[in-house]
Amino acid sequence: MEPVNVIGVGMTQFGVFEDSIVQLAQNAALEALNDSSTIESPIDYLIIGAQNPEEFTEQGHLSTLLADYIGVVPAAATRVETGPSSGSSAFESAVALIGAGMADLVLVVGVEKMSQVPRSTASKILARMLSYENEIQYGATPTALAALITRRYMHDFGLTRDELSLVPVKAHRNGAKNPLAHFQKEVSVEKVSNSPMIADPLRLYDCCATSDGAASVVVASNKAVQDYGFSDSAIKVLGVGHGTDYLAVQHRTSLTSMNATRVAAKNAFRTAGIEPSDVDVCELHDAFSILELLNMEDIGLVEKGQAIAAVKDGTTEVSGTIPVNPSGGLKARGHPTGATGVAQIRDIVLQLRGKAPKGLQVVNPQIGLTHNIGGFGNNMVVTILSCI
Amino acid sequence: MEPVNVIGVGMTQFGVFEDSIVQLAQNAALEALNDSSTIESPIDYLIIGAQNPEEFTEQGHLSTLLADYIGVVPAAATRVETGPSSGSSAFESAVALIGAGMADLVLVVGVEKMSQVPRSTASKILARMLSYENEIQYGATPTALAALITRRYMHDFGLTRDELSLVPVKAHRNGAKNPLAHFQKEVSVEKVSNSPMIADPLRLYDCCATSDGAASVVVASNKAVQDYGFSDSAIKVLGVGHGTDYLAVQHRTSLTSMNATRVAAKNAFRTAGIEPSDVDVCELHDAFSILELLNMEDIGLVEKGQAIAAVKDGTTEVSGTIPVNPSGGLKARGHPTGATGVAQIRDIVLQLRGKAPKGLQVVNPQIGLTHNIGGFGNNMVVTILSCI
Repeated sequence: MEPVNVIGVGMTQFGVFEDSIVQLAQNAALEALNDSSTIESPIDYLIIGAQNPEEFTEQGHLSTLLADYIGVVPAAATRVETGPSSGSSAFESAVALIGAGMADLVLVVGVEKMSQVPRSTASKILARMLSYENEIQYGATPTALAALITRRYMHDFGLTRDELSLVPVKAHRNGAKNPLAHFQKEVSVEKVSNSPMIADPLRLYDCCATSDGAASVVVASNKAVQDYGFSDSAIKVLGVGHGTDYLAVQHRTSLTSMNATRVAAKNAFRTAGIEPSDVDVCELHDAFSILELLNMEDIGLVEKGQAIAAVKDGTTEVSGTIPVNPSGGLKARGHPTGATGVAQIRDIVLQLRGKAPKGLQVVNPQIGLTHNIGGFGNNMVVTILSCI
Repeated sequence: MEPVNVIGVGMTQFGVFEDSIVQLAQNAALEALNDSSTIESPIDYLIIGAQNPEEFTEQGHLSTLLADYIGVVPAAATRVETGPSSGSSAFESAVALIGAGMADLVLVVGVEKMSQVPRSTASKILARMLSYENEIQYGATPTALAALITRRYMHDFGLTRDELSLVPVKAHRNGAKNPLAHFQKEVSVEKVSNSPMIADPLRLYDCCATSDGAASVVVASNKAVQDYGFSDSAIKVLGVGHGTDYLAVQHRTSLTSMNATRVAAKNAFRTAGIEPSDVDVCELHDAFSILELLNMEDIGLVEKGQAIAAVKDGTTEVSGTIPVNPSGGLKARGHPTGATGVAQIRDIVLQLRGKAPKGLQVVNPQIGLTHNIGGFGNNMVVTILSCI
């Protein structure tokens, strides 16, 4: 496999905006092209990660349209969709194209505009990631399934309500320092634990919001790294892992461990030739508070049942030994679904460049990891990046 | 780049069916897995090509769902979308994954179920591939744009109405012998030239119908070719090319030549290390009669303006020197959009194996080519396969 690198990143503010999905994608893409000095260069492929652009915005055919509107015609242009992990899957496609020697420069754009439809419509669109036969027709929602998992985790590992609140408290503490985050305000344990109940025991602050936003990265071959002057500063892609599980949660082997994450992480670590203990900073898919804990355990960053201890003792803080979601994560940075995976990679690239926002920079990280969920606990993508 | 091969193919009947989109995908996939002797083997990636499954069928999240329903969990699963070339783009993704050494076995499934919504709704969904600003808001439709191109081609190259009718006449003559074709009935020049006017000068038989259907191929590394006993029979992927053009037809440099095809074909031939004259059989995207002529010229199979002469003198017949669409093409085989590109590859694989349906087998073809359009005259993918 040819070596694969990231040489440019861009991202819009995440939040609720008037900008169209096309404008969001353009803004992130042009920033990434500028950042990589490739804005006037021939791009081989444009890969778009977007979950439900037609349903959220009535704008279809994004790949072809954006090739024109971003200005990369006659580049090949493809949209990749794996639900909320569409951004990471788009990045994975770019890695494969460079890895195969089929391209030297690939522009990846993750984007979603979710505020154009009423929130109830958005929820209905998002709920389609569940199993109709086994879940939807009985009234299950992603939040309800996350609540089920939370209850079981509380039962099995003694997690308390106030302990769980520490996860979004950390997310918001970091998000408050991230100028592009959707929510830039700290919250207290009391505020989280007493916020409105959504699906017992999950409360408002346990659940990420819906957002608009876009993120973009430029993925490059070693030849392009040299051509564009990034020989000393390109971020290397060490590995990508990707796995699925059975669609319905009831068909899986465990409520408190997600096998798709385990498969994805194992494949990523094997390709990278490193161990979980080598990871210096990570961005994990915390769409619900409980998921951050499960993800840490399934990736192997901590032992099973030990994630909350790591949150409590500061291990997962920016200054800790396993910093998790210094960006604020999906909870505070926001979760425009198709954009999230690319935003995670962008944020890890900034960490590895030593250019994270003030107060969020981990000390000299060399290996970073992202983890993105594509269904409810399904279709996971893990990416490992390095600056050495 | 690691060598890439096709070791299994499957396809449903194309037409209008009661089967769900999931059943169609399953049927094609299981046939391809059986054909490649990999039905009980671990698949690394499942790649789904589908254009608008959510809008045509309300079934979202196809990649994750089909990983479960086809039985390939915990394989990575990704949906790829480039409009009507989604199937070819899914195949391209599989080629990149194998080419990069990221996978040994990739199952590709192209599928679309278009009959679940009223035809007027389907037309509205499909029309989104045009430019809203420059085309849709003025009433343009894909058929209207194809008519514009036809008029210009008639003016520039002296094409007559009855000559144009020879294209669908050939399609239906071949389709009549293809047991999986949507339309298995011959038509005459008189019938085509006198069929109802759709957009002057295009008539009913100049326009492909909408169809339901699925096709599937198993893409394999050299290691998998050996492991599964295909050392003497694997079909080799020599090259894939992919290119775009400006979204609105009015922004392009020519009405009678499609630059995205020229870019895609040039890249595919360069990678394959062959010339257009080396192609022994091809499947081209004839969604409208005029497109078959443009595609032949833009790919370089004939000189500019010479395509109709090749149709008239029998060059493009199954028995000719440049057989085009022995399957019946989109016109007669049918065009379930996301399935088409994979069906083209499946049909070329059968040709190269010497296993095409009776009366459609080209004599000893060694090199085959497919060409798939992903928008209106945009987002083209060209694939070159070989049995030697």
